Amino acid sequence: LNNKPAIILVSPQLGENIGMSARAMKNFGFSDLRIISPRDGWPNIDAINSSVGAVDLINNAKIFSSIQDAICDLEYIYATTASTRSMNKRCIELSHLQEEPKKLGILFGRENSGLTNNEISFSNKILFIETEDDFSSLNLSHAVALACYKISRIYETHKIFSTQYEESATCQDLNHYLNYLEKTLDKTNFFKISEKRELMIRNIRNIFTKIDDLSKTEINILYGIIKALDKE
Amino acid sequence: LNNKPAIILVSPQLGENIGMSARAMKNFGFSDLRIISPRDGWPNIDAINSSVGAVDLINNAKIFSSIQDAICDLEYIYATTASTRSMNKRCIELSHLQEEPKKLGILFGRENSGLTNNEISFSNKILFIETEDDFSSLNLSHAVALACYKISRIYETHKIFSTQYEESATCQDLNHYLNYLEKTLDKTNFFKISEKRELMIRNIRNIFTKIDDLSKTEINILYGIIKALDKE
Repeated sequence: LNNKPAIILVSPQLGENIGMSARAMKNFGFSDLRIISPRDGWPNIDAINSSVGAVDLINNAKIFSSIQDAICDLEYIYATTASTRSMNKRCIELSHLQEEPKKLGILFGRENSGLTNNEISFSNKILFIETEDDFSSLNLSHAVALACYKISRIYETHKIFSTQYEESATCQDLNHYLNYLEKTLDKTNFFKISEKRELMIRNIRNIFTKIDDLSKTEINILYGIIKALDKE
Repeated sequence: LNNKPAIILVSPQLGENIGMSARAMKNFGFSDLRIISPRDGWPNIDAINSSVGAVDLINNAKIFSSIQDAICDLEYIYATTASTRSMNKRCIELSHLQEEPKKLGILFGRENSGLTNNEISFSNKILFIETEDDFSSLNLSHAVALACYKISRIYETHKIFSTQYEESATCQDLNHYLNYLEKTLDKTNFFKISEKRELMIRNIRNIFTKIDDLSKTEINILYGIIKALDKE
């Protein structure tokens, strides 16, 4: 188990949602899965089958019969909801969630009715997953995925992309290319209205300068296109 | 159809994932569902059953046989991926996605193999959904839910925070201020180790340039602070 929050499913009904929740947890580096009173008992073959590569989380899931037992070692509890509640408890929107330097647990309610007010009372804060007001019922595993994703972003320091970029074209490379293009177009009737020549050249430049991260290889391809057309 | 991006599922395999994607779209106010060559044909009873309250999106989904046809009316395309690609195309992380004032479409690949490089070539940018490196395979509907959630937050923020901004400070305003600060500090023993003067000035500059959206009013406040301290 790592230091990521515990994900606590409260009386989930469908094994498939448990499995898909486990998969989403693993996608974002979570490993501590706790389940309170799963409706269809435990182990659950649907949970195993739908967990895909996260069957280790299913096998290591801890099963409890009460919320008290499930959260006893944790330090701070969020109760998720997608609908607003009249309750004198602070509510934080998922998109505004900040780092909380405590041992966290996050409660997710049953598919058909969410968490009861009694269950929410065990939480320190309500974690509100923002949805459309008139269609707020999230699939359980979607709610887990959203919370795990957001929290993983809080934990993660900005990672540099490992994409291998090609050698970039310089501005000079592009200018040479555009001059070549212009010269080639001069041989055609492209610039036939001479007053508009300058404007047209600028328009062309504006198009090509909007190509992000143009590489030398790509410039050569662009040259190749003109040369090919010019020979016709 | 509203102004939210089109969600384009490229050759999805399981009807259930299509239905759950539609449900997630509706959770976050999306309505434009487009499907390219669904493996099991169309209509698909599993898609209908798993969409729960979003069957209207399933019924209104547009079916295409090519990516070209599916995107022809759109202005800017993101191709989602959860693994890094060696491709000379700009990649933006989902968590850093910004507003894009164009008619957007987002491509999601097939469950078992994602998008092909050819399919990605139709996109303007790659949208990278950050996952664990060693378990990056997201359920299709989870990927849709994450993207729709994040984008709904971008739209929402703009709705709420359409405050009237103050007139921005220019770079010149800031430079004048920093020169004034430097001149004022010269009268003190702040730059007492003369070899470090230049470095220190640079450090100061780095602090003040990190203030986002500095306004003229705020610059005047900063002036006021120095002037006040200088008089002591």
